[in-house]
Order: sequence, then C-alpha cells, then structure tokens
Amino acid sequence: MKKDVESFHFLLHPRPVVLVCSVDKDGRPNVMACSWITPISEEPPLIALSLWRRGYTHQLIEAVKEFTVNIPSADLVKAVWIAGTRSGRRTDKFAITGLKTQPAKKVSAPIIEQCIGHLECKLVDYVKAGECNVYIAEVVAAYADEELLVNNVWNERANVLLHAGGKYFTTPQACFEVK
Amino acid sequence: MKKDVESFHFLLHPRPVVLVCSVDKDGRPNVMACSWITPISEEPPLIALSLWRRGYTHQLIEAVKEFTVNIPSADLVKAVWIAGTRSGRRTDKFAITGLKTQPAKKVSAPIIEQCIGHLECKLVDYVKAGECNVYIAEVVAAYADEELLVNNVWNERANVLLHAGGKYFTTPQACFEVK
Repeated sequence: MKKDVESFHFLLHPRPVVLVCSVDKDGRPNVMACSWITPISEEPPLIALSLWRRGYTHQLIEAVKEFTVNIPSADLVKAVWIAGTRSGRRTDKFAITGLKTQPAKKVSAPIIEQCIGHLECKLVDYVKAGECNVYIAEVVAAYADEELLVNNVWNERANVLLHAGGKYFTTPQACFEVK
Repeated sequence: MKKDVESFHFLLHPRPVVLVCSVDKDGRPNVMACSWITPISEEPPLIALSLWRRGYTHQLIEAVKEFTVNIPSADLVKAVWIAGTRSGRRTDKFAITGLKTQPAKKVSAPIIEQCIGHLECKLVDYVKAGECNVYIAEVVAAYADEELLVNNVWNERANVLLHAGGKYFTTPQACFEVK
C-alpha cells in the first residue's frame, strides 16, 4: 500500500555524504557535510550541490568561489555528523572533529586529509532554490586512494558512507554486474 | 597513495537510480534511468536532475513540463539497465522491459507500477551544463510503499538500487544510527 510522504527527499536516499571544505579570505578553512550533490556533466566536468542559504559555507563559497569536495569512509561518521550539525561561524570544526587539512593542488580551499577521494572545484554559477542555493562548479582536479578503486569504481574496502536520513547512515554491499 | 581519476563522477557514486517517466503530447509514455539527481530544497520541495541534451526524455520534459521520478528496488536492475541504455525514440521500452505504467495523481506523465516510491514533478527551470541540461522541478506529490519505510527512511527490505558505475550496481547494508 502506497502512502503520501512528507519527507519526499528521503526517497532519494541513501546518498553518498561528502565533506565540503571552504576557506575565508584570510585562509581560515571550514568544513560542512552534505549529500545533496550530483555530477551534472562529464565534459566539461561539472557538479551541482545544494547548500542552505543561511549557512556559513554558502557565504565562503560565494566570496572565494573555490571549494573542495571530500569523500569520507564510514569510519568518519562521527566527524561527518558534527560537521553537518554545527556552524563554522561559531566553532572550529577541525578542532572538535580531528579532521585535518592539506593544501589542494589547484584551488585555495584545502582538502581533508583523512578522506579517500577529493574533487577540487571552482564555482561557475548558482541558482536559488527555496531555502538553498544550488552551486554549479567545475571539477579542476579529481583524485582518490588508488587501492580503493577498481575500474574507477569504489571497491568494498572504500566503505563509502551513505546518508539514509536523519541520524541514520549506511554503507554499500559488494557490487554486482548487470548481465 | 592518491592518483588522478578521469571518471571524477564515479567518486560521487554509488547513488540511487531512478526511473524517470515522461510523456509526449499524444500521451505516449517513455522511461529513462538516471542517478544524477538530488533533492535541492525542502520548502518548496524541489529536485534537480541532469539529462543528456540529445536524449528523448529531455525533449519530452521540455515539451510537456511534467514527469515522474520512480524508485526501483534492485529486483528491477535488468529493466533499469535497458531503460538507461536504449532510446525511447526508436524503442517502446515498456514492451521490452515489462515495466507497466499507472496514472499519476497530479501530472500527465504516468508512474511505474513496479516501483516502490514515486515523485510527481513539474518543471520549474533548467540550466545548461556541458552536454546535459539540469532540470529543476517542484515535487507536487510523493508517496511510497508504507511497509518499506521506517520514520520516512527506506528499510532493508526496500533493497534500493544504487549505481556504482558502468555495469556495476549495489544495494545498501542495514542502517546504523550515529551516536
């Protein structure tokens, strides 16, 4: 029996969670968790992500126009939860999560050292959408832990963290090939 | 050791696959598989999805401005693969997949009967992105199999189909709660 659901967005979960790392004009980094993100074009390489318009990351991305997208394994779930529920305006989220930054290759925002994959992004455009802004960005560098990829696809050991909704998370089973 | 990856988009997988159902002006439906989709706002309820600009679904969505997003379980993987790799311009994908349509509640495009969740969508805007168009749509109805949801989140039995990349798919493990 099908019933109406108010939380329509959870029907599009579980989704990979990412840690978005941004930086202010003085070089102070911030980190935020997000799963409302998707690739939107292969050539040029573009992604879209939706961020709450009153959040701090939103403000930094619009000021600096560069950020990184970092893919955490499930072992970082506590840090992800803190990054996603506290504001970097009032808190140094690196100090309370233990997440560490490293310089990126092509953008001013750093990457998160403990993550297994990284996309370096430059803002191209944005669109207002309700309480959020959707940022469209070009991926200027992309790299990942070599031993966690098979044919460019995450293997089981990558243990990619997926957000199911609310406080619930999960990880993928082993992949199977469609015949 | 981190290495550069060309298929940057697979770093944002595995992602829930959906079946996008559109309709032409004479009422003939088409179905397409897609995982480049994300919620972008809760209030109003908005989603964004990216579709190849030369595809048939793109043409129907721009003409009719309504479509449905249908969430398949993993048992539909063969139908998903066919829907995602054939064009509805030349093929009746319902005939070859066995997927069946049912009237939607609020839009002219039908829903897919065998799916476990449905979003009925009206086109609001679109943005060009490389070889694709990103469609922003309002969700005017959302409903799902009651027995597959716990606190609005898919339970294990939902067996949501996730696309890992290429011919590889997976499903989620049981959820855990972050403490």
